[in-house]
Amino acid sequence: MADGPHVTIWNEYRHEKSDENVAEIYPQGIHGTLDAMLKEAGFEVRTATLDEPEHGLPEEVLDTTDVLLWWGHVAHDEVSEETVDKVHERVLGGMGLIVLHSGHFSRIFKRLMGTTCDLKWRLDDTERLWVVAPGHPIAEGLGEYIELGEEMYGEPFDVPQPDELVFVSHFGGGEVFRSGLCYRRGRGRVFYFRPGHEENPSYHNPDVQLVIRNAVRWAAPTPGAAPVYGHYEPID
Amino acid sequence: MADGPHVTIWNEYRHEKSDENVAEIYPQGIHGTLDAMLKEAGFEVRTATLDEPEHGLPEEVLDTTDVLLWWGHVAHDEVSEETVDKVHERVLGGMGLIVLHSGHFSRIFKRLMGTTCDLKWRLDDTERLWVVAPGHPIAEGLGEYIELGEEMYGEPFDVPQPDELVFVSHFGGGEVFRSGLCYRRGRGRVFYFRPGHEENPSYHNPDVQLVIRNAVRWAAPTPGAAPVYGHYEPID
Amino acid sequence: MADGPHVTIWNEYRHEKSDENVAEIYPQGIHGTLDAMLKEAGFEVRTATLDEPEHGLPEEVLDTTDVLLWWGHVAHDEVSEETVDKVHERVLGGMGLIVLHSGHFSRIFKRLMGTTCDLKWRLDDTERLWVVAPGHPIAEGLGEYIELGEEMYGEPFDVPQPDELVFVSHFGGGEVFRSGLCYRRGRGRVFYFRPGHEENPSYHNPDVQLVIRNAVRWAAPTPGAAPVYGHYEPID
Amino acid sequence: MADGPHVTIWNEYRHEKSDENVAEIYPQGIHGTLDAMLKEAGFEVRTATLDEPEHGLPEEVLDTTDVLLWWGHVAHDEVSEETVDKVHERVLGGMGLIVLHSGHFSRIFKRLMGTTCDLKWRLDDTERLWVVAPGHPIAEGLGEYIELGEEMYGEPFDVPQPDELVFVSHFGGGEVFRSGLCYRRGRGRVFYFRPGHEENPSYHNPDVQLVIRNAVRWAAPTPGAAPVYGHYEPID
Repeated sequence: MADGPHVTIWNEYRHEKSDENVAEIYPQGIHGTLDAMLKEAGFEVRTATLDEPEHGLPEEVLDTTDVLLWWGHVAHDEVSEETVDKVHERVLGGMGLIVLHSGHFSRIFKRLMGTTCDLKWRLDDTERLWVVAPGHPIAEGLGEYIELGEEMYGEPFDVPQPDELVFVSHFGGGEVFRSGLCYRRGRGRVFYFRPGHEENPSYHNPDVQLVIRNAVRWAAPTPGAAPVYGHYEPID
Repeated sequence: MADGPHVTIWNEYRHEKSDENVAEIYPQGIHGTLDAMLKEAGFEVRTATLDEPEHGLPEEVLDTTDVLLWWGHVAHDEVSEETVDKVHERVLGGMGLIVLHSGHFSRIFKRLMGTTCDLKWRLDDTERLWVVAPGHPIAEGLGEYIELGEEMYGEPFDVPQPDELVFVSHFGGGEVFRSGLCYRRGRGRVFYFRPGHEENPSYHNPDVQLVIRNAVRWAAPTPGAAPVYGHYEPID
Repeated sequence: MADGPHVTIWNEYRHEKSDENVAEIYPQGIHGTLDAMLKEAGFEVRTATLDEPEHGLPEEVLDTTDVLLWWGHVAHDEVSEETVDKVHERVLGGMGLIVLHSGHFSRIFKRLMGTTCDLKWRLDDTERLWVVAPGHPIAEGLGEYIELGEEMYGEPFDVPQPDELVFVSHFGGGEVFRSGLCYRRGRGRVFYFRPGHEENPSYHNPDVQLVIRNAVRWAAPTPGAAPVYGHYEPID
Repeated sequence: MADGPHVTIWNEYRHEKSDENVAEIYPQGIHGTLDAMLKEAGFEVRTATLDEPEHGLPEEVLDTTDVLLWWGHVAHDEVSEETVDKVHERVLGGMGLIVLHSGHFSRIFKRLMGTTCDLKWRLDDTERLWVVAPGHPIAEGLGEYIELGEEMYGEPFDVPQPDELVFVSHFGGGEVFRSGLCYRRGRGRVFYFRPGHEENPSYHNPDVQLVIRNAVRWAAPTPGAAPVYGHYEPID
């Protein structure tokens, strides 16, 4: 394996095939845009989509994935229980997971959070993501905030309190949202990053791309020693 | 409803019926001992067990439960998906949940945590639960520690980092364990409390009883305003 | 002592004496408005101000205070080291502390946080405080948000990550701020609540008053057993 | 500057000069042992001690320090206010700080924590540090636990709840202690690591050394953009 983390980008890949406007923004799919950007940054990257066999995530792919990105929206329920089980197990074992935008309602994110992950929403707003943790590695290299034309997501966001909060968003319509959240689950790291509505070109934005590259490095496994569970003889 | 929180104690209630030693310690079941103790403290209390219809937790019981206690061990898999769904929804809506001892592997606790909840274990040890958060309401009225003859549970405990850590246990065999953990999930509060192996009389211990009474008060709902989710018109 | 927590309201009380506009909003001082509101809610309340002997906080007052409110702005440096020491010691021993608005730069808050507590600011904006923890007791009884004409405070707010985050504010000028923060320090609880610029009538707002009453109840001491420190004989 | 973080090791360096037993364990001082170990690992390292001018920490040293280690015990009060101020400012600006053993009572650690940092203690015990966060980078490469002959430190440890808890210690005399604690303060990272009583050879232990090397990497600055504070013009 190369030096940096091996990345797999999972994309539902439906809007891009059915909606001309989306296809214009992401002609190779959302995963295609992310793939090109991460490769250019020197990462080893693969993509996987819902309609491939095993949703593009057979054992051999997961076995060699350090960080998995996840974008889904209209077809969360088509992701098989088996795939959710496998990804869940991998994350708890150390694989990083970056959940993007509407992936907040994905089966894998809800499984990891244990809550509804519900929120408010509205199309066609303006978002300003403020850095609230300026020393966090995921904010490295940013200015004070990122500005986007985006869908609005509003609080309350029904997730557990994050281990670290990196971004808080301001929306033109009057709402706020915790938009960059770090979690440790098992030996794996999970980062939820809000932007990325399919009708907005957010994944072409250089600062959004920078955050995702930073997050990939942050989420890379540091597995340590395998934990020991089960029956255990006394030491003393 | 009375002033204090309405409590429902859920118990698997199998060991007490099949194992003489356990029956001797808990002649009315673990739930019976907890029921008597909580009633004596003035709480309104009901019990429910696995083998009752709907596991003793029909809608009308859950609708009038403020705090649910959960003890299970050998039959976690016999708890129906429907019951887990209902309890999960109630906790996220504000109902308190106190998970006891081997309930760490219950379906509802694993659902809320999103992790394996795995750990080490060994029968017949000595446990000393140290208070590490002396100002926490769940520790109110205790001394420095509680001493018990107990089963050992050892780290790592594969759960999310708790919102608050109240107790850490020392075991004679050489292990440690985070043994009192507070979580907020949705609008509900969850407390995991380690002691309570069925072959040890821990639920007769006055300090263990005090912790459970304190935890019932801590976990009682403070539902606030109902959160608003879904499509939302701009304010500004 | 009465049933509820005994409250002492500390106010710098300078603007109200030197600025007509402020005096019109708070004819009895900010402390006077808070005093009346808390008394009406049934709390036992006293006030203390900077220019009284010992800043109005002699031992006998602190000895009988369960929760201390703190408003200061232009004269943080006039608060004596001795008073900061005493209040600090009391908070670590269990006394609740509610720090209001420009109190973010008070010596006691900086002492407890260990950071600069710095932020952005601008007069004459509109603030909308969103509830992000709808099940938190400090949010009890509120709607989705509170709207105020207020001074703007903007992120980053240089404080430790809070133990619990209750409110996030949206400002008309485009900024956000974590505006309701819970901390446990020693055996005491600390709540920082953002609104309250002296030129705005925020402490007359019923929802702001409700939050402060809720916070008083939340911050009331639950001292548990006194912790034991120092040389210690082995138990085993 | 080289690739890795530049490390400065600060040591009180008194016991080694006044106590033969300590001098035998650390003939070049505690700082000398740490210096050799970190240099061997490829870090650029300097040392500084209490009795040097400006305690060995003039501006030019702090300006080129990425991570500062701190060991002190009997002479905390001899560290000047000016030095504490400068180190404090540097940590909030991004410099990593690793506080070792009896440094829990150092002025800089108490300043950063805002609490008493008090605890129990007793000489001549056995410590077993259990990894409770097996996926944490500071635990990378360890087994399940580290065993040492050491001074006992016992709970409660009067510090704020850590952002991440990595180790919990078991002591032969019956106590427990949170012995590896991660904090973010300002843009800097702080790690408290318990072992290192001067009469025990803990800093010669390979696992203790591994933890310190891991911690140096973890604590290295990721300063991001400089935060903007003060008066701020509206954006919208």
